[in-house]
Amino acid sequence: MTPQQQNLVETVRERFGPKSVTTDADAIAPWLSDWRGRYHGASAALLTPGSTGEVSAIVALAAAAGVALVPQGGNTGMCGGATPPADGSALLLSTRRMNHIRRISAEENLAVAEAGVILADLHEAALEQGRRFPLTLGARGSATIGGLVSTNAGGTQVLRFGNMRSLVAGVEAVLPDGSVHNGLPVLKKDNRGYDLNQLLIGAEGTLGIVTAASLRLVPAVASRAVAWVGLETPQAALDLLRAMEARTNAIESFEIVPASALSLVLEQIPGTRAPLAAPQPWNALIEAVASGADDEAPGALLERLLGDALEAGMAVDAVVAASEAQAEGFWRIRDSISEAERTAGVTIAHDISVPIPDMPRFMVEGAAAVESRFPGTLVSPYGHLGDGNVHFHVRAPKGADEVHWYPAHAPEITRFVHDLVVASGGSISAEHGIGQLKRAELERLGPPVRVATLRAIKHALDPRGILNPGKLVTLAPEAPAP
Amino acid sequence: MTPQQQNLVETVRERFGPKSVTTDADAIAPWLSDWRGRYHGASAALLTPGSTGEVSAIVALAAAAGVALVPQGGNTGMCGGATPPADGSALLLSTRRMNHIRRISAEENLAVAEAGVILADLHEAALEQGRRFPLTLGARGSATIGGLVSTNAGGTQVLRFGNMRSLVAGVEAVLPDGSVHNGLPVLKKDNRGYDLNQLLIGAEGTLGIVTAASLRLVPAVASRAVAWVGLETPQAALDLLRAMEARTNAIESFEIVPASALSLVLEQIPGTRAPLAAPQPWNALIEAVASGADDEAPGALLERLLGDALEAGMAVDAVVAASEAQAEGFWRIRDSISEAERTAGVTIAHDISVPIPDMPRFMVEGAAAVESRFPGTLVSPYGHLGDGNVHFHVRAPKGADEVHWYPAHAPEITRFVHDLVVASGGSISAEHGIGQLKRAELERLGPPVRVATLRAIKHALDPRGILNPGKLVTLAPEAPAP
Repeated sequence: MTPQQQNLVETVRERFGPKSVTTDADAIAPWLSDWRGRYHGASAALLTPGSTGEVSAIVALAAAAGVALVPQGGNTGMCGGATPPADGSALLLSTRRMNHIRRISAEENLAVAEAGVILADLHEAALEQGRRFPLTLGARGSATIGGLVSTNAGGTQVLRFGNMRSLVAGVEAVLPDGSVHNGLPVLKKDNRGYDLNQLLIGAEGTLGIVTAASLRLVPAVASRAVAWVGLETPQAALDLLRAMEARTNAIESFEIVPASALSLVLEQIPGTRAPLAAPQPWNALIEAVASGADDEAPGALLERLLGDALEAGMAVDAVVAASEAQAEGFWRIRDSISEAERTAGVTIAHDISVPIPDMPRFMVEGAAAVESRFPGTLVSPYGHLGDGNVHFHVRAPKGADEVHWYPAHAPEITRFVHDLVVASGGSISAEHGIGQLKRAELERLGPPVRVATLRAIKHALDPRGILNPGKLVTLAPEAPAP
Repeated sequence: MTPQQQNLVETVRERFGPKSVTTDADAIAPWLSDWRGRYHGASAALLTPGSTGEVSAIVALAAAAGVALVPQGGNTGMCGGATPPADGSALLLSTRRMNHIRRISAEENLAVAEAGVILADLHEAALEQGRRFPLTLGARGSATIGGLVSTNAGGTQVLRFGNMRSLVAGVEAVLPDGSVHNGLPVLKKDNRGYDLNQLLIGAEGTLGIVTAASLRLVPAVASRAVAWVGLETPQAALDLLRAMEARTNAIESFEIVPASALSLVLEQIPGTRAPLAAPQPWNALIEAVASGADDEAPGALLERLLGDALEAGMAVDAVVAASEAQAEGFWRIRDSISEAERTAGVTIAHDISVPIPDMPRFMVEGAAAVESRFPGTLVSPYGHLGDGNVHFHVRAPKGADEVHWYPAHAPEITRFVHDLVVASGGSISAEHGIGQLKRAELERLGPPVRVATLRAIKHALDPRGILNPGKLVTLAPEAPAP
């Protein structure tokens, strides 16, 4: 611990009590690596402020002393954005104690939640009010509001209500000098210059520590229905989605799964069963919901719309789950693809997006380009077709291993995929952010005007690099990756 | 003209031809004052680039020479944001020649329009595709896309589809060094750091010159119905709106009009008629639309919902326009309030917002506070209740005049109103922006952390003050504190 860090820790303990900081290595250890075990950092102390005022005071002290801080929520990020630097130059600051829902109003369809509130707890609190917070993801039992706001998280339910950016109505954050931006009052119209709330959403804690957010709620789900559909091509899948959306706004998920991913799950994950009688080149998992008493029963709705689609030759086969257990079985297939890939071998994951109308072509042509350039690989693009966001996973040739093959080939394959994405006007990070993982690729593919602008903003608000150093964009330009 | 300006003008003429610049004083004159005649500027030349490339080259030249530029669209702003400084230190740059709709797609519900496209022309182009761009305002025959994006414009149709920020899916802009940010590709998910599109929306041309935007379209209106409703209180009006929204999503406008504003219009504007048999303390103008064949006819919908409201005692009286002419008559009342006020005497306008649930209370208590503090004034809050945004107009005492009374009293009254707004967590600019008009008030009421952050961002992207100097936030004489 540097003398400056030591000083900071002692002052915090004195002012805010023993709950506000620990230097116990065993207590700190679990938070020093990301959950996938890719990044390992060091921090001699873990700061755990209990209020926005305490965060503000700590950041002001840290700024004065030149001590860098790494904000952390549930530590469920995919890009190493919450792992501190390995050299111990920064201290971890966890928002976990700030876990109060300050206000929840069914009438206003609004919740004001502190940064440390766990997503599943917010789901529950909303349900008790007959409402729903319509964003969910696998890590909902650990992911926190602060992290979800700071990564502009997505998930499997973005289709209808959007990602975090669409659901955040206001942000409270401590800026790098310790001052507090209070953007919590929900104003449908506010034209007082640059939108600071929008700037903080997705900033990965590099411009401010999000301490609370005003969040939009929607009506609770009264019932849902889930269908599995067999299709010839990704274009047919997108056509089907558009046709359904033209007739109802009840479609909340539309996930695409290629035959290769389905068969891998059936092979690797015990207890999974093929939803359709015969395998189809592409599959779509579709969920429809009803909220109000006036809404059509979602099962009947899906039967009707998919019946028409089959008749029109848009889809090859389709089944609507006859029970909640069967619906969960369909979702289990979708949610097990990553696990099946890990069990079967080595996979290089890419969380990318392109404009939605281009996605079907990209899935087919991009996969062919990769497989032809890197013989033996198999591309398995799956996920959020309706968001223009698939997880473009490249499975390594048989026999490849994590230790030798991955470092020798993954960077080149990833650069190749990212080049394809950029050529289609897409994004190398659709929903996971940049963190440490994609910083070099962002620097390489920016484009330069974007990187220069991000860097200028970072410089303007955090000139000394107090908040989350080494994430998203560094203060100084880096040498390009080899 | 300074030698640097002279140089710039000559280089532009040489490189881009005679269409790209004029120094004819008569041609420039109409663009040197805002349309309300409050602000008067000077510019020795009017630059009129024909493409994004030309804007980029001009800004790069201007940056190199230290010549400031004032971007201008239709010159319909409410806050002097497009009027150049009076000392001639900046040159006007008009986007009027960049008036192409680059692409319009009914299937994708998308238009890509250049900055100089006039709103009414976009409306027409969308209609030809069976679609609609759902933002409109009085100046639609002159206002341009670039200005609408740069002021995050609102209007009377924000209730359902939101303001410009909600309708802009991508921004192309020339930054203060001449580089081009191309944010036009529409990505539903893109987490490559700070959202630069969002930063440019509502930035009033101080961070970049918007040269084009990707804009969302919605289904065209098949039919509409307009109702006039009499109510006891603003709270009853909000309750009615909430009750209607719980049963339909077809309500597109909900404008509140106090008895005093209605009677002023009836008195001052020839050809207007009272919609209801007896005057009511408050009135709501409600518009419902149908887009698809499956939608309920909006007239029948309003009859049904308002019938229930009358029965429940929520409303006192209501009439649904029996013809398009009658519907237009109702809208004419709403749209004539400003004109009636101007005809009748002196009015101080305030475009403010507070959180929606607080607006009914604010309208009553805020008005009472002003009238008690400034005897003889009459407060007439009207407009977009469902957006939490009313035009809080203070009518001067009888006999007051623009020349003496206004400068002697308006600033104090405005400060009083703004203090009330800030105390309610509201915004001193709901939809008109800051420009020159509200710069001092923004500086006074910021809050400080907001002003410091705006200034830091301005410094970061435009350190020499090349773009739209003197608007929104000024560069402080010294760099902002780290």
